[in-house]
Amino acid sequence: MIYGDKQIERPIRWAMAGGGMKSQIGYIHRSAAMRDFNFELVAGAFDIDPERGREFGLKLHVAEERCYPDYKTMFEKESKRPDGIEAVSIATPNGTHYEICKSALEAGLHVVCEKPLCFTVKEAEELTALSKSKNRIVGVTYGYSGHQMIEQARQIIAAGELGEIRIVNMEFAHGWHNVAVETTAASTKWRVDPKTAGPSYVLGDLGTHPLYLSEIMLPDMNIKRLMCTRQSFVKSRAPLEDNAYTLMEYDTGAVAMLWSCCINSGSMHGQKIRVIGERASLEWWDEFPNQLSYEVQGEPKRILDRGMDCLYPSALAEDRIGGGHPEGLFEAWSNLYGRFARAMTAAEKNEEIDMWYPDIYAGAEGVRWVENCVRSADKGGVWVDYQ
Amino acid sequence: MIYGDKQIERPIRWAMAGGGMKSQIGYIHRSAAMRDFNFELVAGAFDIDPERGREFGLKLHVAEERCYPDYKTMFEKESKRPDGIEAVSIATPNGTHYEICKSALEAGLHVVCEKPLCFTVKEAEELTALSKSKNRIVGVTYGYSGHQMIEQARQIIAAGELGEIRIVNMEFAHGWHNVAVETTAASTKWRVDPKTAGPSYVLGDLGTHPLYLSEIMLPDMNIKRLMCTRQSFVKSRAPLEDNAYTLMEYDTGAVAMLWSCCINSGSMHGQKIRVIGERASLEWWDEFPNQLSYEVQGEPKRILDRGMDCLYPSALAEDRIGGGHPEGLFEAWSNLYGRFARAMTAAEKNEEIDMWYPDIYAGAEGVRWVENCVRSADKGGVWVDYQ
Amino acid sequence: MIYGDKQIERPIRWAMAGGGMKSQIGYIHRSAAMRDFNFELVAGAFDIDPERGREFGLKLHVAEERCYPDYKTMFEKESKRPDGIEAVSIATPNGTHYEICKSALEAGLHVVCEKPLCFTVKEAEELTALSKSKNRIVGVTYGYSGHQMIEQARQIIAAGELGEIRIVNMEFAHGWHNVAVETTAASTKWRVDPKTAGPSYVLGDLGTHPLYLSEIMLPDMNIKRLMCTRQSFVKSRAPLEDNAYTLMEYDTGAVAMLWSCCINSGSMHGQKIRVIGERASLEWWDEFPNQLSYEVQGEPKRILDRGMDCLYPSALAEDRIGGGHPEGLFEAWSNLYGRFARAMTAAEKNEEIDMWYPDIYAGAEGVRWVENCVRSADKGGVWVDYQ
Amino acid sequence: MIYGDKQIERPIRWAMAGGGMKSQIGYIHRSAAMRDFNFELVAGAFDIDPERGREFGLKLHVAEERCYPDYKTMFEKESKRPDGIEAVSIATPNGTHYEICKSALEAGLHVVCEKPLCFTVKEAEELTALSKSKNRIVGVTYGYSGHQMIEQARQIIAAGELGEIRIVNMEFAHGWHNVAVETTAASTKWRVDPKTAGPSYVLGDLGTHPLYLSEIMLPDMNIKRLMCTRQSFVKSRAPLEDNAYTLMEYDTGAVAMLWSCCINSGSMHGQKIRVIGERASLEWWDEFPNQLSYEVQGEPKRILDRGMDCLYPSALAEDRIGGGHPEGLFEAWSNLYGRFARAMTAAEKNEEIDMWYPDIYAGAEGVRWVENCVRSADKGGVWVDYQ
Repeated sequence: MIYGDKQIERPIRWAMAGGGMKSQIGYIHRSAAMRDFNFELVAGAFDIDPERGREFGLKLHVAEERCYPDYKTMFEKESKRPDGIEAVSIATPNGTHYEICKSALEAGLHVVCEKPLCFTVKEAEELTALSKSKNRIVGVTYGYSGHQMIEQARQIIAAGELGEIRIVNMEFAHGWHNVAVETTAASTKWRVDPKTAGPSYVLGDLGTHPLYLSEIMLPDMNIKRLMCTRQSFVKSRAPLEDNAYTLMEYDTGAVAMLWSCCINSGSMHGQKIRVIGERASLEWWDEFPNQLSYEVQGEPKRILDRGMDCLYPSALAEDRIGGGHPEGLFEAWSNLYGRFARAMTAAEKNEEIDMWYPDIYAGAEGVRWVENCVRSADKGGVWVDYQ
Repeated sequence: MIYGDKQIERPIRWAMAGGGMKSQIGYIHRSAAMRDFNFELVAGAFDIDPERGREFGLKLHVAEERCYPDYKTMFEKESKRPDGIEAVSIATPNGTHYEICKSALEAGLHVVCEKPLCFTVKEAEELTALSKSKNRIVGVTYGYSGHQMIEQARQIIAAGELGEIRIVNMEFAHGWHNVAVETTAASTKWRVDPKTAGPSYVLGDLGTHPLYLSEIMLPDMNIKRLMCTRQSFVKSRAPLEDNAYTLMEYDTGAVAMLWSCCINSGSMHGQKIRVIGERASLEWWDEFPNQLSYEVQGEPKRILDRGMDCLYPSALAEDRIGGGHPEGLFEAWSNLYGRFARAMTAAEKNEEIDMWYPDIYAGAEGVRWVENCVRSADKGGVWVDYQ
Repeated sequence: MIYGDKQIERPIRWAMAGGGMKSQIGYIHRSAAMRDFNFELVAGAFDIDPERGREFGLKLHVAEERCYPDYKTMFEKESKRPDGIEAVSIATPNGTHYEICKSALEAGLHVVCEKPLCFTVKEAEELTALSKSKNRIVGVTYGYSGHQMIEQARQIIAAGELGEIRIVNMEFAHGWHNVAVETTAASTKWRVDPKTAGPSYVLGDLGTHPLYLSEIMLPDMNIKRLMCTRQSFVKSRAPLEDNAYTLMEYDTGAVAMLWSCCINSGSMHGQKIRVIGERASLEWWDEFPNQLSYEVQGEPKRILDRGMDCLYPSALAEDRIGGGHPEGLFEAWSNLYGRFARAMTAAEKNEEIDMWYPDIYAGAEGVRWVENCVRSADKGGVWVDYQ
Repeated sequence: MIYGDKQIERPIRWAMAGGGMKSQIGYIHRSAAMRDFNFELVAGAFDIDPERGREFGLKLHVAEERCYPDYKTMFEKESKRPDGIEAVSIATPNGTHYEICKSALEAGLHVVCEKPLCFTVKEAEELTALSKSKNRIVGVTYGYSGHQMIEQARQIIAAGELGEIRIVNMEFAHGWHNVAVETTAASTKWRVDPKTAGPSYVLGDLGTHPLYLSEIMLPDMNIKRLMCTRQSFVKSRAPLEDNAYTLMEYDTGAVAMLWSCCINSGSMHGQKIRVIGERASLEWWDEFPNQLSYEVQGEPKRILDRGMDCLYPSALAEDRIGGGHPEGLFEAWSNLYGRFARAMTAAEKNEEIDMWYPDIYAGAEGVRWVENCVRSADKGGVWVDYQ
């Protein structure tokens, strides 16, 4: 149980790149980081418009001289301060993640980065090497992965309760972009332009989320080959897709299907995963994240609720309130930022924490998966070996 | 509203081939046919064991001399009676459907046949031609298609309420065969043997059901090409599959995914369809068939319940009880058998009824789809043009 | 498992009083009785309009001379036939149940009677005595009580799995009569007139249903006292109520609440029961009757589905189709009519069947409960000892 | 939409009384208050054990000299500081609320108080007068009332969309205390002792929550009389109840039922409200607080989801994240604390805010309702005029 009192020796001095005024994702980062005294917001390059960024920073109680016009200036100036930042979160459009992350690592900072980490496997490998050589943490915000019921699912599977895993069905399929909302909504506009969004839209923006859930739940299974087909139902989005199916085969013989979609009319969010084993299945849906369905063939379906005493200890450790109350994305992110803070603190001592979190390998894996999907799709939806 | 009083001039004289003692499907046929005075059971070749078949027929109040040892004898003897049967339902293992159906049509009988109608497109075309030349009805029992909410969905789509159709996601994925139950269960055993089951297991046995729902809801869309991958997780079932994914492209540009599975541990039945249009989506699940989810993007999700005054008249016409009470498979089959009876009665006058039903074209289409799926799967899961 | 073949020596010769053209309840009686060869419809006084009744009887294949103008003529004439009726079902307005039931018993017939059996406890006791002295069965149609999941609940409780029973919450609260539909709907009109409906509307018409479910599930608990308050929100219905709350105390110390309502806007049917024990609770809702929620405090909620192998044998015995398919009111009634048929057959041999069914004591108890509720309500909602 | 930037001129200097180490409720207060720069935690008397309180305060970054041994010292010392506290939140056992609240008001502080505000109507009136004369805000933490969907419900009703309100059904019925957990759990122990808990257990602790929801949704309806019956199923809890039913009549002719229970085995939280009008109903459940069911009789049930553009502006104003993500108790409390902060800031200027919040009148009303319930129950469950 978390009660909000300080759990690490001292809060980490922290800044944001992006996530400025009217940025929803910026608020989520701050809510998660500043909760529970893990991070202290002391600087920021919040906005591409320096004045607006400064104004916003002041509203966040950041000292005026630490509201920077851009991330480069920030990294440079902060590195000269005795109380300079130790970590930065990157919440800018996709196309800038790679360069900011690289700069931050080079400046000796820990990083929390929005996904995708970058656009190519090559870039991802470069960042991974840099992170390692610099002994700096890179956390990637696969937000709901921090929810306690994901850890519960992971533990159930680790205990062998499902039997041999056979099938993994995943989807992230919302309906908000059923029409060309990007003509008026800036936050969607950059997502459908390859220059700013990278080689995919829904595969990267949505599909990598449940993919990461599957990686966490099934750490010993590796994709052997996949095939992907993608469409642009809103024509102006081509070549980026607003719908995609990916079929996968694992080295264990298991198979998977992952549906990525932003034109699923009527769906509010729609991230789901179902893991099917020989004996039982698990199912989870992010709109009702506190309930995990556990279905043993031939037995009554069981609904596991967050906070129940019968859950695994590691799935209870990060509860902030008793069962029966929904904990949602804000709490899941808080859990991740808590782990990031502990991992950063540990890294300074060349230690590691005893809990997984979406790290740079997870970020790189998402980039790799998208690259494979796009390769398959662009060849006409053929099976490709996973590289 | 149906109140059970006779709706056609007189009940059709009717027999069954198969569906004997302890046959669940036989009971469903009889429950549906004999309800509401549409059919009168007057003869039968109920069992491969003549004595057991005779004994069972007597329990069903069939006259002893009309309990036949096999369908051939039945067709021959009945054809000589002035009160001989006019129609026969076929509820035997898959491998015999083709020959019994053919015999029945040649004997001038109307037919209700379990799916699959036969094993190959060639056979299906032969039966179709025979049915046409003989002016005889062949009904195929895609059971839940008779549920009123399927008709409601069809009407909503026909009225254009979803906008342009983009995506169709289907599944029929239960968990009853997660292990090799066929070693002890006779009713499963013949399903996993190609000799008796045909070229597929779950594709034909399960997948064709939601496929037919999609055909009914989307009568103007045609599959252009598809790809299919299938697995035998219970090894002894190979070459027949217990899991399969099929991806499809339509001539309209729409796409579809259909998941067929009998090892979905914990799932009780699991036939679902979601039709996604530019403006709205519809979703239906056979375990809760009286509720149809209608989701207009940006508006509250609506749950349409069977029996509501606001439904389309054709979706209310076959109600047997007011809304709020579940009508299930028995009622859906009764609806189909009612339409079969009316179609048979009309055929005698060279007329047609004003309601769709799963006819021989639907049966043939199921065979065709399986053939295409198998062709794709056997080539390694490649896209094949739909033939 | 029921497969529809004859289970008793021969079908019972059976007639209906009421339940004529356009009568939904009449159809439900016939669907249930005639399924599975338990009853054979050979006569009827279907309608208050003799000609319309005759016409309807012919549509049901009843011989013309056995379509009677009224129940008295029917009982008289049938008693003189060697193949005369042995049982009659009464589906007429409430105000006539008592006299028809009495006549039928006096004529030596078994009876299936719509509830309420009659209007007063005195009448109920008279009928009970008559039924006993004549050795004739009176079945009362508390329809959903025949659903297998009610039997499952009964067995779970009997096995002590809930621990000491503390609280029983019941409701039957639909919304169909939120406005004065009776001004145009004949089937509602007589229900809001004390002359034809008796001393209550929703208490008797609705409330007695979940009350009977509680009696079946909790056979050893007796109401000690109760209090009831009732309202007529549609003013023209006064003195009959369209909403009522009843609080009850049992001799065991347990308490109960029962909400009866026909103005619950938006609710389709709304019969529910929740039984709460020291250790666990059970919950059931008639709109989704195949699912029974079993909730052990501190453990995951379990959803028991009809047809699961792990259910009690007596809860599986009357299945007509495998789990995953909804069985509804038609099947529940079929189960009851099957038990009625077996009870009637057994009564002829002075035997009893090994399964409970809603008998004349259940019918009388419903009348008694309504009388107590009305007594409390008419005194201003005070506690009254249960008499 | 809230993005976490400062919305009032400056954060309010704030302290806590109670809510110390391992206090869940203390964490919820702090999470809500400190989010979005509304309050700044600068002092505290966190614990009855001064040393433990001091230690905890330090972990919360409170200056050592402002970690006080008790609330009296805190109020006295802080009043002498130029930067002394302006507001205090009270999260101590029930029996101390009255005296701390009174002291705080007398010290010129704004207050946020856990419910119940006090134990008697007399005390409540005294505090109300004091709050008025001192021009100080007292907010009461009916937590879920701050959820946006409650405001949405309020607006739907205000717009007359339900028609005349007839019935209000409420419940708060969890199962966590099905056995005498208080023998080991300190946080439950004081709740079942009248000295520390007051004249009721579940009526006050649970029942007042949905009662307040009804007051917010139905501001123009007043209780005219009520009756209440209560039980102590865990015997050692007597005279305090662990189950209670309350029936109510309003001055408008509407009626209500409220079920308070902590022994509802298997229920995780179970706060629900259903408001039934002539035309439509609304239903809300705190375990799934982002969905509001809106059911117009004769139309499909609509599920309104938080964040939908079609909601009322005031129900969207406090969103922190887009629809499809659950916002829960933490966000609902943050909304309330945001309103408290704005109300406190406005009070300093003798202004009022344009949004309701659970104020001292709401707190007093809860005390009054419990007093009436207890009076009725102690007289044997009779109707009493609401005083």
